[in-house]
Amino acid sequence: MPNEERRSRMRRAMEGLGLDALVLRLPENVLLLSGHWPMIGAAFLVFPLEGTAKLIAPECFQNEVLASLHHCEAVFFPHGAHHHPPLLEAVKKLVQENASSSWKRIGYEGDFETHAPSWNAAEGIVPAATSMALLREIFAGKELIDATAMIRHERRRKTAYELNRLDIASEVSCFGLAAFEEAVAVGISGVELAAIVEKAIMIQGTGYRGSVRVRAFAQVSTGAAETAIAHRPNIISTPRKMIDGDFAVLELGLVVDGYWGDRTRVRVAGTPREEQLRIYDTVRRAQEAATAVLRPGVRARDVDAAARSVIEEAGYGKHFPHITGHGLGFGYHESWPILGPTSEDVLDEGVLTSVEPGIYSPEFGGVRIEDDVAVTTNGPRVLGPFRKTCN
Amino acid sequence: MPNEERRSRMRRAMEGLGLDALVLRLPENVLLLSGHWPMIGAAFLVFPLEGTAKLIAPECFQNEVLASLHHCEAVFFPHGAHHHPPLLEAVKKLVQENASSSWKRIGYEGDFETHAPSWNAAEGIVPAATSMALLREIFAGKELIDATAMIRHERRRKTAYELNRLDIASEVSCFGLAAFEEAVAVGISGVELAAIVEKAIMIQGTGYRGSVRVRAFAQVSTGAAETAIAHRPNIISTPRKMIDGDFAVLELGLVVDGYWGDRTRVRVAGTPREEQLRIYDTVRRAQEAATAVLRPGVRARDVDAAARSVIEEAGYGKHFPHITGHGLGFGYHESWPILGPTSEDVLDEGVLTSVEPGIYSPEFGGVRIEDDVAVTTNGPRVLGPFRKTCN
Repeated sequence: MPNEERRSRMRRAMEGLGLDALVLRLPENVLLLSGHWPMIGAAFLVFPLEGTAKLIAPECFQNEVLASLHHCEAVFFPHGAHHHPPLLEAVKKLVQENASSSWKRIGYEGDFETHAPSWNAAEGIVPAATSMALLREIFAGKELIDATAMIRHERRRKTAYELNRLDIASEVSCFGLAAFEEAVAVGISGVELAAIVEKAIMIQGTGYRGSVRVRAFAQVSTGAAETAIAHRPNIISTPRKMIDGDFAVLELGLVVDGYWGDRTRVRVAGTPREEQLRIYDTVRRAQEAATAVLRPGVRARDVDAAARSVIEEAGYGKHFPHITGHGLGFGYHESWPILGPTSEDVLDEGVLTSVEPGIYSPEFGGVRIEDDVAVTTNGPRVLGPFRKTCN
Repeated sequence: MPNEERRSRMRRAMEGLGLDALVLRLPENVLLLSGHWPMIGAAFLVFPLEGTAKLIAPECFQNEVLASLHHCEAVFFPHGAHHHPPLLEAVKKLVQENASSSWKRIGYEGDFETHAPSWNAAEGIVPAATSMALLREIFAGKELIDATAMIRHERRRKTAYELNRLDIASEVSCFGLAAFEEAVAVGISGVELAAIVEKAIMIQGTGYRGSVRVRAFAQVSTGAAETAIAHRPNIISTPRKMIDGDFAVLELGLVVDGYWGDRTRVRVAGTPREEQLRIYDTVRRAQEAATAVLRPGVRARDVDAAARSVIEEAGYGKHFPHITGHGLGFGYHESWPILGPTSEDVLDEGVLTSVEPGIYSPEFGGVRIEDDVAVTTNGPRVLGPFRKTCN
């Protein structure tokens, strides 16, 4: 049965917290424990410590549910037509029917302030006051336990099955990196480059190794002023046309059936100046130095130091303001590990982390190179390897 | 001062609930009351009943904040570099400094289970347990009131300023509708069509009438089997190639600087059959009949009936399973009004609603036509009018 390791690990963690069951609705966590990535936030997973998990899902998505479910039974409710009962009314009844009266402590998702969207991404659905009231009604007299920290902790180490799925996402990201490489030229804009990258990923990624729901989110900055701030949490792509010698920085998030990738590549339009090549090469060496030290037991701060020391030795230390990387997988970013100078995190087998040092200055612009790297007993494994050249 | 009507209406509503201030972090609500659409969910708005509102935002987005803020002061905190303090620590201090000790009742966003993503959309940030704990700490001894219902209620009627911004979003959607119309042909797939539409909107929409952050979410179904279920809450675009006589249904959500549009158009590849034209024409007449009755005071169920009766008279009544429309504007969908057969809603000036009847059958596939229509004292006003032809 696919990904049995994930379910048995989660059950051990539930025992640690004394939980009899989890009731989950965030698409990322339903995927984690059922194999099905909900179309919207309308599916609920009842995952007991003992016995069979039940996915309570809208009937209209029956085909998608049955095509992906692992070791879990599906229960459907009518949804979407004007005469169907309200979603939460239907869910309430089915959660009640699939819960055991012997359960005493039930875990829920109370603190996913940062979360991953579903595929369509135009609308988020999360548990808030209404869902909490529903749980309190269903489980009156029982203890409701916020299981957020436990779920996040369990997500730190990916299973072999999950890394295989994450490989697919990273391989799909390469369609976008290749389209970017080909398109960067004098006269093109960041908005155009972002649109080209997203289109390439959607068209070439859908169907790739069985991929069904594929979407990319590209942000492309161009020229010195824009790329100098390309380390911000969001970069607005603009209609500014590239001129000779401009950097273009592609920050790329993408999702393939619930598994995320996060890449960055940089290209120069026309002819690079010598300092641009030197900066690019410095970032590339820093990125490879940090990647090289990834192994079970390494301290996250030492991974950061491996990248930072290369950049400092080249004289660009003050131009590298951010951390070297972060966890990801069930989201574009996960909150652990943080590869930063003061991090207390220690990496273990199965951790997936971005490795993404950068150098930024208003004078010459910004460069960042980012791959997603799995920590294995054999050392680092770059998911979806892709060449690093800026021209 | 732009959109002063919105702020004065909200203050009246706050008086009704006895609120001294609102503390908001969802991008859609920060936009509503400050004019600034946060880049991510890291900005907090302190909106007092009396005195000046304060937007507490990351310093790295200072330019974006100052370019869009209305009648509100900005307070910045450092964010994004590895040595900056944690986000919520910085926010806590600044909310405290900008709150008055005389406030007794503070409103928060406790129940936005469905919400709009920010522009990048790859990551959602919402208030959950951590934000609630922060508010309880900041406002110890005060009453925290869930203001969700009040905010949603106030969002029902858009102001003239907001409708102008929503016009821009609907006009931008037309770039996608035109690209769809041009691209539908034998041999193209739903995935390709979706990617073409999203690219056209991103490239042609960015910069249009001052638009800065533009993103589309297209779902395209093709052929009878796929379009027959195109009324589901999500439709997966597939790599299936269109053949002669296939319908293609484009379901399109899009956002322009925080203001949303929701459109649907249908085209036939190659030569339509006679029944396809009859169905298309029936849906078009139903859509126009429902649009025509929109005016202040009309019951939502009567708008639904206007569309439904056209479809029933043509003999397709059982093939129209969904409601005729829904509110939208600060999100892809808003929960009020619901234009359905049992709706109790009564429309008023400033309401923006989708009007989107459809006919679906496994035999001949599905057709839906959708526009966003504002209710004005002069009757219905279609935002971003676009032709309705299927071939």
